[in-house]
Amino acid sequence: MIVAAQLDRSIIESIVRQIVSAQSGLSANKAAAPASAAAKPNLVVSISARHCHLTDEHVEILFGPGAKLIPEKPLYQDGFYAAEQTVMVVGPRRRMLPTVRVLGPTRKASQVELAFTDAISLGIDAPVRHSGNIKGTPGCVLVGPKGVVELTEGVIRAARHVHMNNRDAESYGVKNGDFMKLRVESPQSTVVFEDLLVRADGTSKLEVHIDTDEGNACYLDGATKVELLKQSADCKCKH
Amino acid sequence: MIVAAQLDRSIIESIVRQIVSAQSGLSANKAAAPASAAAKPNLVVSISARHCHLTDEHVEILFGPGAKLIPEKPLYQDGFYAAEQTVMVVGPRRRMLPTVRVLGPTRKASQVELAFTDAISLGIDAPVRHSGNIKGTPGCVLVGPKGVVELTEGVIRAARHVHMNNRDAESYGVKNGDFMKLRVESPQSTVVFEDLLVRADGTSKLEVHIDTDEGNACYLDGATKVELLKQSADCKCKH
Repeated sequence: MIVAAQLDRSIIESIVRQIVSAQSGLSANKAAAPASAAAKPNLVVSISARHCHLTDEHVEILFGPGAKLIPEKPLYQDGFYAAEQTVMVVGPRRRMLPTVRVLGPTRKASQVELAFTDAISLGIDAPVRHSGNIKGTPGCVLVGPKGVVELTEGVIRAARHVHMNNRDAESYGVKNGDFMKLRVESPQSTVVFEDLLVRADGTSKLEVHIDTDEGNACYLDGATKVELLKQSADCKCKH
Repeated sequence: MIVAAQLDRSIIESIVRQIVSAQSGLSANKAAAPASAAAKPNLVVSISARHCHLTDEHVEILFGPGAKLIPEKPLYQDGFYAAEQTVMVVGPRRRMLPTVRVLGPTRKASQVELAFTDAISLGIDAPVRHSGNIKGTPGCVLVGPKGVVELTEGVIRAARHVHMNNRDAESYGVKNGDFMKLRVESPQSTVVFEDLLVRADGTSKLEVHIDTDEGNACYLDGATKVELLKQSADCKCKH
């Protein structure tokens, strides 16, 4: 197990924390029952701290005319990055989170992804949604150094999911849109997360995304083993 | 499923949130395989928000000579209560949580129980420990209206556990010190918590204690089913 370097000194301010399962760890995984005999790829489990995605228009309102997102750190998936920019997220009762990281590139709709702990602290009843599916979700106010945006919708708790390419999907015997389970074994805090949506395409790297509540619940930083299991697989959890 | 009334208007400030599984819900639990045919008791799953336990001496230092804890709300376990009093918990870098509830009655050693989210925000590396087992754990500073206490140890993340009486234990086929699993089924957020310590005695009511990170990870407030399973039980989780 390797704990990837944190991006900031303070964990709470870090954008992503990761656990990487080495090949040897995964080969000890007897439950995944790959459909082929091909070597399985390394499994990366990433904790996404609260963050937001912005449209080009909102970047200019918040950070000034002509402003663009400035990449600061690349994320694990190629082409995605944590920007230098942060925004303040303000809830309905004027509670706020002062520095929420913007992730790039820009999107067609702005969206704020919070853990329930964050949403509760803001007084927002955030629904569990997959990224991009924000119709009818609560809004919030974003405050940047040059302007303010009122989002009428877009505040969600991102539903847990796993990115992979089609070869990975084949090796696990799953396809895009299926559900899997993630088992994280850690001292006194082992958890099995069900309802893990498979998002398979031609190019993504194998990576599970969970939020800070989920990462803290399973003590991911102390994990000794991570396993990706078919939802329908026989459970090998200490049985 | 019944969501018990919250103790405070704001969820984040509430002391305990609970999900109570009605008898009908539990009887649908096919996985627990009770050793006897006796009707199973209702299962209560409680989220403990951050709180502290104090010694008589520390109550007097923090709240003044002669001060006693004043019960405000009874907890589910008989004889235990949330006190009127709160303390400020200060971490090593002068970050603080302003209002941490004191639970009564007093104990032989003071102890602060935090979720990892809380501990990270304070800059404290809290270990996962069962209540009362605080040797070698980090300390903190407690600030009350009349004085200050520096704890040299006692800050923990409380390990998940289930209270029950010996009849409950018999009905589940477990004994004090065994481990069980809690499965919480909720929309897009189903979780199985392993490593759930059984604390069985002659008088306790059946109640699972998890922390706010765990309760948020499994979206306990939206749960449609809770099941207490033997660690060694055949897994019925959608298989």
